[in-house]
Amino acid sequence: MYLSMMRQFRKQLTQMKVWLDHAQTHAKERSFESNVLLQARLAPDQFPFVRQVQAACDVAKLVAARLSGKEAPSHPDTEATLDELRARIDSVIAYLDGFSESDFAEAATRKVSQPRWEGKWMTGEDYFFQHGLPNFYFHTTTVYALLRHNGVVVGKRDYLGPLDLRAPA
Amino acid sequence: MYLSMMRQFRKQLTQMKVWLDHAQTHAKERSFESNVLLQARLAPDQFPFVRQVQAACDVAKLVAARLSGKEAPSHPDTEATLDELRARIDSVIAYLDGFSESDFAEAATRKVSQPRWEGKWMTGEDYFFQHGLPNFYFHTTTVYALLRHNGVVVGKRDYLGPLDLRAPA
Repeated sequence: MYLSMMRQFRKQLTQMKVWLDHAQTHAKERSFESNVLLQARLAPDQFPFVRQVQAACDVAKLVAARLSGKEAPSHPDTEATLDELRARIDSVIAYLDGFSESDFAEAATRKVSQPRWEGKWMTGEDYFFQHGLPNFYFHTTTVYALLRHNGVVVGKRDYLGPLDLRAPA
Repeated sequence: MYLSMMRQFRKQLTQMKVWLDHAQTHAKERSFESNVLLQARLAPDQFPFVRQVQAACDVAKLVAARLSGKEAPSHPDTEATLDELRARIDSVIAYLDGFSESDFAEAATRKVSQPRWEGKWMTGEDYFFQHGLPNFYFHTTTVYALLRHNGVVVGKRDYLGPLDLRAPA
């Protein structure tokens, strides 16, 4: 199950790159500097676009790392262009590609914590369902919403990506 | 796993009611008619707030129904107030409460389809990971984003809800 979800995270991050493509096309058509979008916000006290993309990437890598007990790659949050964000996404996709089913054999019962929890912890299973999963989709959907709000032509198919539909029996 | 996810859907819908509470408080403080928010949109060609709430409810009930082979309750999409949306959410929560582990025993291998797929289908497992799960969070996060964009005071804790944090060992 955890590996299936990592594959879905990977797919969603791949779709995010498609949204970035549409953002660049839109900027070119409307003759504005595409990197302006990195500072777009839905509210003045919410993280801007660039931080939403970084957060989506971080949740994906940290969920994989915490549930497997492996080390996560470090990213210094210095991206200033859509191309650099694309590279960040690619780096996380490459990291996710290194996992296999056996890496998550003990995922459900691992102790997961982070500094802001001040010593408290969650089981891997609780962390996954209550924190990792909703946070991942929170940030990916907010990235999508920011582009949609700024007139970028993205639709539900770009959000979901290709589906494994089977032919009528 | 599917039952764990239905519990998480249930939790997220419960949090959505908290966001609606904050929306009503905000409207009262700013002296505007709270139901105006139902027509809020992030883009002119995206579904408004009311439809996003309805869609989140529908995805939750349809995932549960399709993966269990049970009938989903019908909702005619007539909500015109935040209170009516709250009742819609409550109805779906009550439906989700009726499921147990055994209902999803064959979930992964069920054939899932919907009219717009014109006879094509997905396995329950593919449908869940590729369609149901991302769609559920798409609509819940968009609901949250719309409120945030309209100045409603909601934060990440309202999004995630309470976490099963355990005391330091």
